[in-house]
Amino acid sequence: MIPKLQVALDNLSLKDALKSLKEYGNIIDVIEVGTILHVSEGLEPIRFLRILYPEKIILADIKGADAGSILAKQCFDAGATWMTAICCADIQTMKSMLKVSKEYEEDKDIQIELYGDWTFERAKIWKEAGLKQVVYHRSRDAELSGKDWSDEDLIKIKKLCDMDFKVTVTGGLKVENLKLFKNLPIYCFIAGRGIREAKNPKQMAMNFKEEIKKYWK
Amino acid sequence: MIPKLQVALDNLSLKDALKSLKEYGNIIDVIEVGTILHVSEGLEPIRFLRILYPEKIILADIKGADAGSILAKQCFDAGATWMTAICCADIQTMKSMLKVSKEYEEDKDIQIELYGDWTFERAKIWKEAGLKQVVYHRSRDAELSGKDWSDEDLIKIKKLCDMDFKVTVTGGLKVENLKLFKNLPIYCFIAGRGIREAKNPKQMAMNFKEEIKKYWK
Repeated sequence: MIPKLQVALDNLSLKDALKSLKEYGNIIDVIEVGTILHVSEGLEPIRFLRILYPEKIILADIKGADAGSILAKQCFDAGATWMTAICCADIQTMKSMLKVSKEYEEDKDIQIELYGDWTFERAKIWKEAGLKQVVYHRSRDAELSGKDWSDEDLIKIKKLCDMDFKVTVTGGLKVENLKLFKNLPIYCFIAGRGIREAKNPKQMAMNFKEEIKKYWK
Repeated sequence: MIPKLQVALDNLSLKDALKSLKEYGNIIDVIEVGTILHVSEGLEPIRFLRILYPEKIILADIKGADAGSILAKQCFDAGATWMTAICCADIQTMKSMLKVSKEYEEDKDIQIELYGDWTFERAKIWKEAGLKQVVYHRSRDAELSGKDWSDEDLIKIKKLCDMDFKVTVTGGLKVENLKLFKNLPIYCFIAGRGIREAKNPKQMAMNFKEEIKKYWK
């Protein structure tokens, strides 16, 4: 399967996000309302984007840690297709989100954001509880402190794919990084500033799409 | 020191939150904009409450996991006194928040929310990085699944106090639970529905305050 392309709108306002999104919104597969934008404007960007892009997957990156059923209802009622949970959340919290996701007619889903010292033991528990998606990343701050993609990253990502998770990969991805993952069945690549802040965001989104098609069928 | 009393506004709208807050807002020490309210309305509740309660500690419970400096600037610029980080965030993320917190004239601070499999090894790293506050809780969902406060909880809380953290305790706290912690230098108790949804929220807030004064000087 060809990996999807997601752009993270980590803008301080929806207005700012729209300035670049309007260029490539129809090219990408998943529109992410980033945590920064949620903190600024709550769920209003989700409602807005659902109207503008009725056919797209819209992700609410709220990184829920607790009160799973309430948060899931908030995100999905606003129009999100997917929402994120933080990896250190109690399994009950994730199960509550999952339960709520099944109450909708459309395909809703939960992504687990892998930060810090998550373990494959925990990943097994997520799998057994019916969770399907994980997001593997270098944190923005780790990235800023100069860490690059490593063999260790690739081994962990492979192991998650082998566990049959749909794996999304993120963390300062550039077009030239994609081939690093060419032997893995990546579900989705997230670009943020790499596309949003490109000189020509539309062209850059197309470049990502073309590069993905080179390595995955 | 007498523990502070905090109420978590885990409402779906600020309007709903204000209905009870106006009864006890001047009695409590810390007003928390809960994650649920942040997800609904972004930072607007922080700005609103800063105007209504200029002298109170206002906490933005956003449970930041990444992009520490941007999130900290967002919360503190809006008027928050404290903000939360999730325990599985990279230490660089926490350091970035802390660094931003020191750029303000007023006393700003970061609280680390303890969820999942956090360890005392990690806690040592937080301490060394200069972080001062942790929030110990039973998750709402763990609580709903029937887990009560245990000796294990008290031992962990004591160990955190002994490490010289300012420890906040939360998770479905009722007035009658407070004495459980009487031998510990708790920094702050959080009540949520226990006060918000009491028949007489003002009286209940006063009951919490009186109970705290019974056991701590």
